[in-house]
Amino acid sequence: MSDVLLKALIQALGDERVLHGAAIEDRYRTDWSGQYHHDPLAVVRVQGTEDVATTLRLCHAHRHPVTVQGGMTGLVGGGQTGVGDVVISLERLAGVQEIDADAATMTVWAGTPLQAVQEAALEQHLYFAVDLGARGTCQVGGNISTNAGGNRVIRYGMMREQVLGLEVVLADGTIVTSLNKMLKNNAGYDIKQLFIGAEGTLGIITRAVLRLHPAPEQTTCALCVLPSYEAVLRFLSRARKQCGASLLAFEAMWPDFYGFMTRLPGIETPVQADGQLVVLVECDSGPSGLSQDAFETFVEQALEGEEITDAAIASSLKQAQAFWKIRDSVSEFPVRLSPYTSFDVSLPIRQIGRFVEQLREQLQSRIPGSVSLYFGHVGDSNLHVVVHVPRESGGFPKPLIEEVVYGLVGDYQGSVSAEHGIGTRKKAWLGHTRNEAEISLMSRIKQALDPLGILNPGKVL
Amino acid sequence: MSDVLLKALIQALGDERVLHGAAIEDRYRTDWSGQYHHDPLAVVRVQGTEDVATTLRLCHAHRHPVTVQGGMTGLVGGGQTGVGDVVISLERLAGVQEIDADAATMTVWAGTPLQAVQEAALEQHLYFAVDLGARGTCQVGGNISTNAGGNRVIRYGMMREQVLGLEVVLADGTIVTSLNKMLKNNAGYDIKQLFIGAEGTLGIITRAVLRLHPAPEQTTCALCVLPSYEAVLRFLSRARKQCGASLLAFEAMWPDFYGFMTRLPGIETPVQADGQLVVLVECDSGPSGLSQDAFETFVEQALEGEEITDAAIASSLKQAQAFWKIRDSVSEFPVRLSPYTSFDVSLPIRQIGRFVEQLREQLQSRIPGSVSLYFGHVGDSNLHVVVHVPRESGGFPKPLIEEVVYGLVGDYQGSVSAEHGIGTRKKAWLGHTRNEAEISLMSRIKQALDPLGILNPGKVL
Repeated sequence: MSDVLLKALIQALGDERVLHGAAIEDRYRTDWSGQYHHDPLAVVRVQGTEDVATTLRLCHAHRHPVTVQGGMTGLVGGGQTGVGDVVISLERLAGVQEIDADAATMTVWAGTPLQAVQEAALEQHLYFAVDLGARGTCQVGGNISTNAGGNRVIRYGMMREQVLGLEVVLADGTIVTSLNKMLKNNAGYDIKQLFIGAEGTLGIITRAVLRLHPAPEQTTCALCVLPSYEAVLRFLSRARKQCGASLLAFEAMWPDFYGFMTRLPGIETPVQADGQLVVLVECDSGPSGLSQDAFETFVEQALEGEEITDAAIASSLKQAQAFWKIRDSVSEFPVRLSPYTSFDVSLPIRQIGRFVEQLREQLQSRIPGSVSLYFGHVGDSNLHVVVHVPRESGGFPKPLIEEVVYGLVGDYQGSVSAEHGIGTRKKAWLGHTRNEAEISLMSRIKQALDPLGILNPGKVL
Repeated sequence: MSDVLLKALIQALGDERVLHGAAIEDRYRTDWSGQYHHDPLAVVRVQGTEDVATTLRLCHAHRHPVTVQGGMTGLVGGGQTGVGDVVISLERLAGVQEIDADAATMTVWAGTPLQAVQEAALEQHLYFAVDLGARGTCQVGGNISTNAGGNRVIRYGMMREQVLGLEVVLADGTIVTSLNKMLKNNAGYDIKQLFIGAEGTLGIITRAVLRLHPAPEQTTCALCVLPSYEAVLRFLSRARKQCGASLLAFEAMWPDFYGFMTRLPGIETPVQADGQLVVLVECDSGPSGLSQDAFETFVEQALEGEEITDAAIASSLKQAQAFWKIRDSVSEFPVRLSPYTSFDVSLPIRQIGRFVEQLREQLQSRIPGSVSLYFGHVGDSNLHVVVHVPRESGGFPKPLIEEVVYGLVGDYQGSVSAEHGIGTRKKAWLGHTRNEAEISLMSRIKQALDPLGILNPGKVL
């Protein structure tokens, strides 16, 4: 059966677009984790929407499973090839199709790297508001399929809020072109919402209309030291009030995280935390943003109000970059903190402080010797947790760590996935965040759109 | 069969909650248009989610059609009772359940009037960002079901962007409680998106978690005169750049609309349009907004740049209210412009100027004597059109007017509904905005969630 499908794919799309056997490079077999290496039946490097439709029509007719691959930077196994799957790679479906500066929209192919989208917007003095570390490699189709977040969510929202229209190919090969460019369009159901964050399990996104914003021309930031999580909440409330929509980022770092990062080589220590929390706050300070004076007043008043005990305001772009480096050097974890595992969870914002204390305690008591670090976009209720167990403690008890973390997330009615999605790696924990009725409704949607279950099988649900 | 259902409803919910026969007031038979008066089988005044579930379980078992009714202020017939339907009225399902000031969220029952939501937020020094003329009567559940827009969309987005969680009862009576309070939650499909803007055809919303914002403490506005639509676009681009996120409203009025409104009794004429367009621009001028000086500079530079030829800046709250009264006195149309019909459409923003010229021409040539007025939230690509035909022209050719307007909207690839929805009144025109594949996908969703078609039958699809 598989041979028949392979032949049909080659016949329909040609040898050059359909890789098989030895021609398949290893990068199509695994994702960044390198955890599994599975041989696909074929890799179809689609060159247009019609190619995606043809591939899906054939796979649908053969009831053959399909894996969709973008930049392969996802953290939950969503792009991992299944054994014998047909892989649809979107890498050639790249490029900006149109920028409408008046409407502040961009029409783009799904395989375009995020950074290319950002740069194309900037060329028109516009700004694409989603940004994350993998920007050079990840693709905008994947960003949409996972409803990506990042550092600027507090100001601009997540990927969902940047998408005005989509073109999608359904499991049976039906092309649905819904490239709306208008901010307001209440003509029937907003069907694009179904595919945003569905991790390729309901259809394959081929094109998108993205919303652009005026670019912040100048930013200013400060590193602030706070005695407690209660103080972080009061400081956040003040930032929302005094900085308003100029507030671009509000990143909290617990003392162990801040201490670990500032001990790394090449990282400065602009403020001494002394066991306190540190918040990196950033504002738009361009012509339509907060003035430098107003930003300084905001920080001074927080000092007077005793929400913060110390602060450093960046006086140059270089210094601002040094501040951000503390937050963003998480790419050092694999080198400096191995073995480790990391988490991306959401919690009711008021309870994040208590959650951190309790989780640290539970981890220490159940896994003696474990070290846990905490940081996150607390303004969006998003916490990142990194757990390391030194080799000398004997083995790395990943299942137990996950049980402790997700168990407590469930107790707090938090989310097991704030921005990374479910993929395969978090599937077992979905029930800690979503109840039976919610999951059953998700299954009903999956059943309606992909009754044969060929799209990214085994992922999300 | 209907008798059996009625008895079952009364038995399950009691006589007081289930109105029937002469006990049914006329307001349940018709919407604000008064166009149809249909007798329902019963009106169920639900008092909790369980009541909605019970009603739907029974109607589902009897395959009996249901009409959902909120504040009955919708403009497209979405709340109109069908003959013999069971009406579910949400008027008693009202009240704010919780406000979380730290997280800036509110949990609210669907039947709560919009104004009550706004006022409850303000009491906590927070702000609910959707606002529209019917605020005193419309209900927040209806606002969600129609994805309401209004004047502040350019800053805060539509209703969809204000909803964090929902509780919904499905057609078969299944309760799906998904009252997420977190800004980020990518744990599986975002199922609430299905019900936002679905006009009650996929499920009945009973509760919602809404997102709140810091309230703008002070605003400033100006009425500006612009020589052409090209100038409006350049002025909008300047406003976006210089006012940034402080830009709260950008309302365009074509000369015939402005002339008509300023001739109404009790309306001032702050600037002379002399056949030019007028834009009402409003900014946040509180501590985190644009300073009064910066706002004045913005207007002066637009004068120097010749985007605007004249401007009046409001120097007091009273004057600002007088400016807004020009835009908002559309409630005078039934009295002053009868017979008339009005439209709510979206168009690619760059083409709105040409659309207006062409539509005016077509209306005048095909319906001699017709008068058309144009205004709208052009920053959101949203145009409102009012068409009046004096009685002496003989009859009011509504079908012809609709054919002309929606025909041209189709030619421009616009939307036949920017913010009002489809209901029954725009159903015939849905195909002008959505293609076959889009509509077929909508039907597939409807089929999956309401296979018997009992929820608001005949509406949207």
